[in-house]
Amino acid sequence: MRVDLGNALETTPGITTETLDRLDERVAAAHDRIAAGMADDEFGYAALTLPETADPDRIHAAVDGFDRPEAVLTVGIGGSALGAATLATALESDVDAYVLDNVDPDDARALLDDLPLADTVVNVVSKSGTTAETLANFLVAREAMADAGVDWTDRTLVTTGESGNLRELADRHGLPSLPVPDGVPGRFSALSTVGLAVAALQGHDVEAVLAGGRDGMASLSGSLYESPAYAYGAATYALAERGARTNAVMPYAESLETFAEWFAQLWAESLGKDGLGQTPARALGATDQHSQLQLYRAGPPDKLVTLVRPTERADVPIPETDLDGLAYLGGSSLGGLLDAEFEATEASLAAADVPNVRVEIDRVDERSLGELLYGMEAACVLYGELASVSTFTQPAVEWGKKAARGLLGGGDFPEADAVTEKRELRVD
Amino acid sequence: MRVDLGNALETTPGITTETLDRLDERVAAAHDRIAAGMADDEFGYAALTLPETADPDRIHAAVDGFDRPEAVLTVGIGGSALGAATLATALESDVDAYVLDNVDPDDARALLDDLPLADTVVNVVSKSGTTAETLANFLVAREAMADAGVDWTDRTLVTTGESGNLRELADRHGLPSLPVPDGVPGRFSALSTVGLAVAALQGHDVEAVLAGGRDGMASLSGSLYESPAYAYGAATYALAERGARTNAVMPYAESLETFAEWFAQLWAESLGKDGLGQTPARALGATDQHSQLQLYRAGPPDKLVTLVRPTERADVPIPETDLDGLAYLGGSSLGGLLDAEFEATEASLAAADVPNVRVEIDRVDERSLGELLYGMEAACVLYGELASVSTFTQPAVEWGKKAARGLLGGGDFPEADAVTEKRELRVD
Repeated sequence: MRVDLGNALETTPGITTETLDRLDERVAAAHDRIAAGMADDEFGYAALTLPETADPDRIHAAVDGFDRPEAVLTVGIGGSALGAATLATALESDVDAYVLDNVDPDDARALLDDLPLADTVVNVVSKSGTTAETLANFLVAREAMADAGVDWTDRTLVTTGESGNLRELADRHGLPSLPVPDGVPGRFSALSTVGLAVAALQGHDVEAVLAGGRDGMASLSGSLYESPAYAYGAATYALAERGARTNAVMPYAESLETFAEWFAQLWAESLGKDGLGQTPARALGATDQHSQLQLYRAGPPDKLVTLVRPTERADVPIPETDLDGLAYLGGSSLGGLLDAEFEATEASLAAADVPNVRVEIDRVDERSLGELLYGMEAACVLYGELASVSTFTQPAVEWGKKAARGLLGGGDFPEADAVTEKRELRVD
Repeated sequence: MRVDLGNALETTPGITTETLDRLDERVAAAHDRIAAGMADDEFGYAALTLPETADPDRIHAAVDGFDRPEAVLTVGIGGSALGAATLATALESDVDAYVLDNVDPDDARALLDDLPLADTVVNVVSKSGTTAETLANFLVAREAMADAGVDWTDRTLVTTGESGNLRELADRHGLPSLPVPDGVPGRFSALSTVGLAVAALQGHDVEAVLAGGRDGMASLSGSLYESPAYAYGAATYALAERGARTNAVMPYAESLETFAEWFAQLWAESLGKDGLGQTPARALGATDQHSQLQLYRAGPPDKLVTLVRPTERADVPIPETDLDGLAYLGGSSLGGLLDAEFEATEASLAAADVPNVRVEIDRVDERSLGELLYGMEAACVLYGELASVSTFTQPAVEWGKKAARGLLGGGDFPEADAVTEKRELRVD
């Protein structure tokens, strides 16, 4: 992973090299804190040791009992789904990967009707074993398997904590299962059993993903000038402090579209607290040049744009044409056009004084993805240290969970009363 | 479409009923301006007359010559693709709809390799006929058809302006073609030939989409209290002025996921100018409760959350279970759970003083979608009037287009020089 901060210097909002020099002392102190947390396996920090502590053999042992399936269906939500989905979107496989991460009846029914359930592995993921959406979907998926005459105990993989509902279910039925590692919040679990089991089922090289993570781990150091991850984390923090409230993450590769979603969870849930945080906006190059770029360039000066691309990719030549005014496209390629658009957008933002950061990986493969995911996690942890927030918790989502549970008759929660007392001003 | 502003009153930032009362005088004046623009078919305003001016017979005549295809591939970008894609994602059909709206070589190759090209209609859409991404993709798709032994002139539908490359191409080869209506910017073209041709090819009821648009049109009036669209436009404007810089649009329906993308273009490109505008964030309920909600609830108080749902949907019961602590789910349904989560999230945001607006449609069908798309367009136009911005232009995207064209050798553009002079601060 390579980071180029050149286009974030002297923009609006912006930082200077002096800003970064001053910040580098705090980066050194934050790195010490992070390294100590990693050494002591502290909650959250433990995620940054996964490239060394994750056990690919255990993952293989859990999934190798399944005949090579046609499809894998992950039943999970948030951090239980997005890491696996990021790798599945990025890497090609002849095993299709699907995710049931919402409780939309139309969507669930359509997906379960279409899946070849006899040749599908259902991968149910919930650390606590009580996540309402995930368990509801699992119950529905299990019934669909039964209705299709499939023995669900033959086709289910469980990834969960040391105790709880799903652990008991796995024990009772002898299901293959994987542990959710201790001390690793869901949004930091891409490089663990949670993110890698699907990759293994799809035939991807999970060892290479972890090797990429180790590349990222090796590059952490006491100076932002020596660590791309820390350079990104320190710069985004400093820009946010100076007014870049939104971070538009814009990969120039369709295969990285889910990466932007994964990043959005990492950034929002880790850093959005105490009135602080930077709002992630998911974008996609070149498509969003025809959608979001007008706003990024000419709207309120409260944005940072993070442009991500692989520097190598397979290419497709553009055929020659006699269409008027388009001869310049012939002899070029789709990749050449995409790279020209990347660089033109970057320059166009710079010319309008909008800060932007370039993040590059070599290519979209296992190793580079491992490095990218690790790098962004480390960047996020550093940002959290610099902002003095509680990076690894998500207290603000509990209220709504209680209200929903109360509404469904799952207990007596005062939060549910607030729902029925909603203030109305209806226009219809 | 129904709008409930109750949870945007007295929040942070927030509005009061007095704010709305004062604003209503300006709404009356803005409505007069909009109505005059519609009557005179002025550029942009003409889009709001499409429910009456669009000609479904002409659309049917253009597409009926194709045998019912297996798939439709739209080659277009931004407003030339998102309206059609919104309807295609929302409505079920046995004709699959795909979009080529990026110039990603891997993705284009994979898509073209997978498509049954002999049974696919390629729908190429560009008003000017010169959009680089669209024309490059069309040249690649045309070659793929030729390579597959398919006569491309039998399988291509052209939607374009009155003159230009694509118009000439259609004339030369006798291709079925549709006009892009005059005075309608791409992001406002969902209810025209641009958005409706794919719906017709998929067998959807385009007359019902337009009837929904007419429902929306009929509800425009000189008071925000009488028009859901204006209520939404006026409230979002007033909230943005008071600090709600981000508008997180969160439909509780997977089928409306592309709607959020369409909305994001509409809002960003129309309103993001002169240093003004409100940043659209695309979200999805309930999934993003486990991703973005922590930030919305506890991050910077600079957000509005727009919660969108259909009030009727097909449902899926949740099977009874003996899993510990989950008995409350049995006897409920996925839809019941989703609605409980919708209301819990709404109340949870209100309890944290985060403004949120509820937008409801009856169900996800042609008529309600027509009304929803029309309503959001009218809301956007009203917001633009209140903010005194040039709603229907997108001047800030031109710079980058010139730079990209210069880089590809398509002419001498000084913008391209800025690319090569990029400032660097690399960390790798």
